[in-house]
Amino acid sequence: MTTCQIDCHLTYKIIQPTEIIFLIHAAYSPNQTILAEQLCISPTAAWHEFQDPVHHNRHIRLRAAPCESFEVHYQATVECHDIAVHPQSSGEVAIRDIPDAVLPYLLASRYCNSDQLENMAMRSFAWMEAGYARVKAIEQWIFNNIAYISGSSNQFTTATDTLIQRAGVCRDFAHLGIALCRALGIPARIVVGYVEIENFSPDFHAVFEAYLEGGWRLFDPTRLAPTENLIRIAAGVDAGDVAFATFYGDLELLKIEPRINYQSE
Amino acid sequence: MTTCQIDCHLTYKIIQPTEIIFLIHAAYSPNQTILAEQLCISPTAAWHEFQDPVHHNRHIRLRAAPCESFEVHYQATVECHDIAVHPQSSGEVAIRDIPDAVLPYLLASRYCNSDQLENMAMRSFAWMEAGYARVKAIEQWIFNNIAYISGSSNQFTTATDTLIQRAGVCRDFAHLGIALCRALGIPARIVVGYVEIENFSPDFHAVFEAYLEGGWRLFDPTRLAPTENLIRIAAGVDAGDVAFATFYGDLELLKIEPRINYQSE
Amino acid sequence: MTTCQIDCHLTYKIIQPTEIIFLIHAAYSPNQTILAEQLCISPTAAWHEFQDPVHHNRHIRLRAAPCESFEVHYQATVECHDIAVHPQSSGEVAIRDIPDAVLPYLLASRYCNSDQLENMAMRSFAWMEAGYARVKAIEQWIFNNIAYISGSSNQFTTATDTLIQRAGVCRDFAHLGIALCRALGIPARIVVGYVEIENFSPDFHAVFEAYLEGGWRLFDPTRLAPTENLIRIAAGVDAGDVAFATFYGDLELLKIEPRINYQSE
Amino acid sequence: MTTCQIDCHLTYKIIQPTEIIFLIHAAYSPNQTILAEQLCISPTAAWHEFQDPVHHNRHIRLRAAPCESFEVHYQATVECHDIAVHPQSSGEVAIRDIPDAVLPYLLASRYCNSDQLENMAMRSFAWMEAGYARVKAIEQWIFNNIAYISGSSNQFTTATDTLIQRAGVCRDFAHLGIALCRALGIPARIVVGYVEIENFSPDFHAVFEAYLEGGWRLFDPTRLAPTENLIRIAAGVDAGDVAFATFYGDLELLKIEPRINYQSE
Repeated sequence: MTTCQIDCHLTYKIIQPTEIIFLIHAAYSPNQTILAEQLCISPTAAWHEFQDPVHHNRHIRLRAAPCESFEVHYQATVECHDIAVHPQSSGEVAIRDIPDAVLPYLLASRYCNSDQLENMAMRSFAWMEAGYARVKAIEQWIFNNIAYISGSSNQFTTATDTLIQRAGVCRDFAHLGIALCRALGIPARIVVGYVEIENFSPDFHAVFEAYLEGGWRLFDPTRLAPTENLIRIAAGVDAGDVAFATFYGDLELLKIEPRINYQSE
Repeated sequence: MTTCQIDCHLTYKIIQPTEIIFLIHAAYSPNQTILAEQLCISPTAAWHEFQDPVHHNRHIRLRAAPCESFEVHYQATVECHDIAVHPQSSGEVAIRDIPDAVLPYLLASRYCNSDQLENMAMRSFAWMEAGYARVKAIEQWIFNNIAYISGSSNQFTTATDTLIQRAGVCRDFAHLGIALCRALGIPARIVVGYVEIENFSPDFHAVFEAYLEGGWRLFDPTRLAPTENLIRIAAGVDAGDVAFATFYGDLELLKIEPRINYQSE
Repeated sequence: MTTCQIDCHLTYKIIQPTEIIFLIHAAYSPNQTILAEQLCISPTAAWHEFQDPVHHNRHIRLRAAPCESFEVHYQATVECHDIAVHPQSSGEVAIRDIPDAVLPYLLASRYCNSDQLENMAMRSFAWMEAGYARVKAIEQWIFNNIAYISGSSNQFTTATDTLIQRAGVCRDFAHLGIALCRALGIPARIVVGYVEIENFSPDFHAVFEAYLEGGWRLFDPTRLAPTENLIRIAAGVDAGDVAFATFYGDLELLKIEPRINYQSE
Repeated sequence: MTTCQIDCHLTYKIIQPTEIIFLIHAAYSPNQTILAEQLCISPTAAWHEFQDPVHHNRHIRLRAAPCESFEVHYQATVECHDIAVHPQSSGEVAIRDIPDAVLPYLLASRYCNSDQLENMAMRSFAWMEAGYARVKAIEQWIFNNIAYISGSSNQFTTATDTLIQRAGVCRDFAHLGIALCRALGIPARIVVGYVEIENFSPDFHAVFEAYLEGGWRLFDPTRLAPTENLIRIAAGVDAGDVAFATFYGDLELLKIEPRINYQSE
């Protein structure tokens, strides 16, 4: 069991009155227990939390008035649970047995355009033994064939773009993994969270989950950090669902520091 | 008040065991009351209905065994209500007043890639008086500038593709309307349903709704049928949410006849 | 030495007066000698031939008046030469030694968007021994990984599209081969011509050439016919240069039969 | 009559031995006479000039050895001629009367993908009086509807991208003008050259030419400088033909200063 201390600082210059929706709170999840948390906003602004009905992500909504420095400080103490699963033996779930609520994770989405790479997925991965090993092979293929290069992609980059460019950042790696899974009939989704990555300045991380026997399993084709160290913020069909900040107005991001510290016990 | 009789026939050749999810049932909606409905499947197959948590669309899920002719017959008697609204006077809703649950309809989606046509939307429509009249102007612009041509688009066609090609079918018209609204800060979504269109063989129709003061307002840039005659099946972020049939397996669509008859009283 | 008889029939319905430029004549090339040729056009229309200054392709330009059946019949007797080359031992040509006139075949073009797949090309082929063997490996990779499916592509399909879709026709195979070569610094171009392909109805064929030590070498990633049997019509940067017919006006293609017969001696 | 002094400095850091092809020399053109010119390269490198057979652009080819500062200095004195044309009265040239050598400028190209915006071009411009006035209307439309924003496009940006994004730089403006002309059956090409633009740091400029009665006519949808002040360097199908520098190797551009001064007499 590990206890983590999250310390997330975001600073903006607010140019015009701006509505902002943050997605920076630790998720309510069986894998983690939030022991304590606190959100400080300065200058003070009224905010409220709402959850979307599908992923139950915890959205924080507020309105920021123009100012030189608008600071958002989220702190949380979260306990990670060792969940006794043996994912290595997980098989794939036949379509007929996929729960109704999981079906949407089979559909192509904007960034995970699985319908465009069915042939590629079938040729490369269909012959493999189904199940955890196959998704692990997808993760490995991405790690081997895509270069992690900051700035090599943008907000329009899709899984097929990444496959051509052979470069991307964590969200692109996740999108490609998701798209390949869906193309093979395996439900998959993006997960974002806090994790410490050596030699990287603190940032939000994106990985993916595949739905296998026993439930959702986490994969990280970047191999940048052990997945068991990830404190989960949100899940979604793709990055369109899980932006850490969505805003309407005019602002400038000055600082982003989503730090995490681990205290093993 | 109008009463409609829906009579939707779908016939497939099932080549391999195939999981199918249909979206052909009249929606539960304040605008319409389902007086009676019946779903006949032949050869018999067990099915169940489930609703998604966001749009409450009524998905029918079943598994079809291989056969030469798999028939799905949905019949319903639906009463359309005259709802006393004066949409002409609806203004736009300031971002701060948009309900949490409506926020997702502001985001760019796969087919409604509003983030790519912000400049075009601003240049063409930002100077207009906000509200119902502006969305009406968008509807009119699409009607004037996009040709309705069957077969001119496919399952990958986005709003920007349609804007370039200047041709599409009803779903493309709806996607472009939605994308333009979102680019202007107006929440918008796709709605599919049954409607009779003169000189067209019966087919599902797609239109769009914009969220204005007083709630969702219907617009049809194809101008093919009066919107008050539409019996609503489903709503969604874009066509990805509202396919009338999604399947996993192998089949061939042999006949599609979603008929509707009106009996005014 | 082989002698071939080309017998190319094209029939159009001409709806409006239409300017047409055909590219169906056997090329003047060291690999082939035109022993005799004849062009019959019915109803009669004045035509002239011109060559472009780069590829010296033989364009036939004419104006067709409206009629139900406009027939173009090109016949030629062409001798193919066995040119004593040992391409297997050809190395690649260092950039500094590439002739000025060959440099354009290194640039990305519309269908051969080599600048988008540099990373993929480097990862997959850069480690190989340079020269003929490397281009042969590219040819083999395309043959192994892309399915030849009629109708799977259109006039907008690029090399990167084909790489994602894993399907195409001969011109798509050629474009992908060209793009991969250029990405590796090997000049490459498309070549179209006449060739007999078993179990295919007669059609124009597209292959590609790479510029190696000793000159241009032919490759056919479709493996549909022996390249030594190809009677060359034209070469170009990509398919944009070598359409067998380009027209301005309104017409309908009724029949396309570019037949070829071989008489070995 | 105007005499111009061109003074073009380019400085690179050469990281590896690099083959470079420059396109910076004033063109041989009836509109301008080169009175004197000089190319200095430091450290000295052997170079030669070659012209491509289509556009007769003057390519300078050389090989640069690794060094911290590789300087290219081109100076020329060029006389611009007032050519007595009355372009305002130029009509369009019927397809049948377009010279063979001008036909390629009707084809879609990578950046000027005219085949994708035929419908848009027809709807917006087909109703207008043909000729110079129509191309002027296209120029005006682009000026009115596209914002000149440095950095808003990249080497993959096509005319349709620019039409959607409503932003670009001079080459994007030119590409859109060319694509619209071609879609209407008017041959068009890109022209790059030297021109002084107020409030801009010196840079190469791109405009376009349309082929009308009397020959090629110059248009500049950016309206940044009078076209009669442009000293022409090169023409091409699109920007792919007229890069001021193409290189194979590894280098870094340190300074780009293509200055021009005018001495009216």
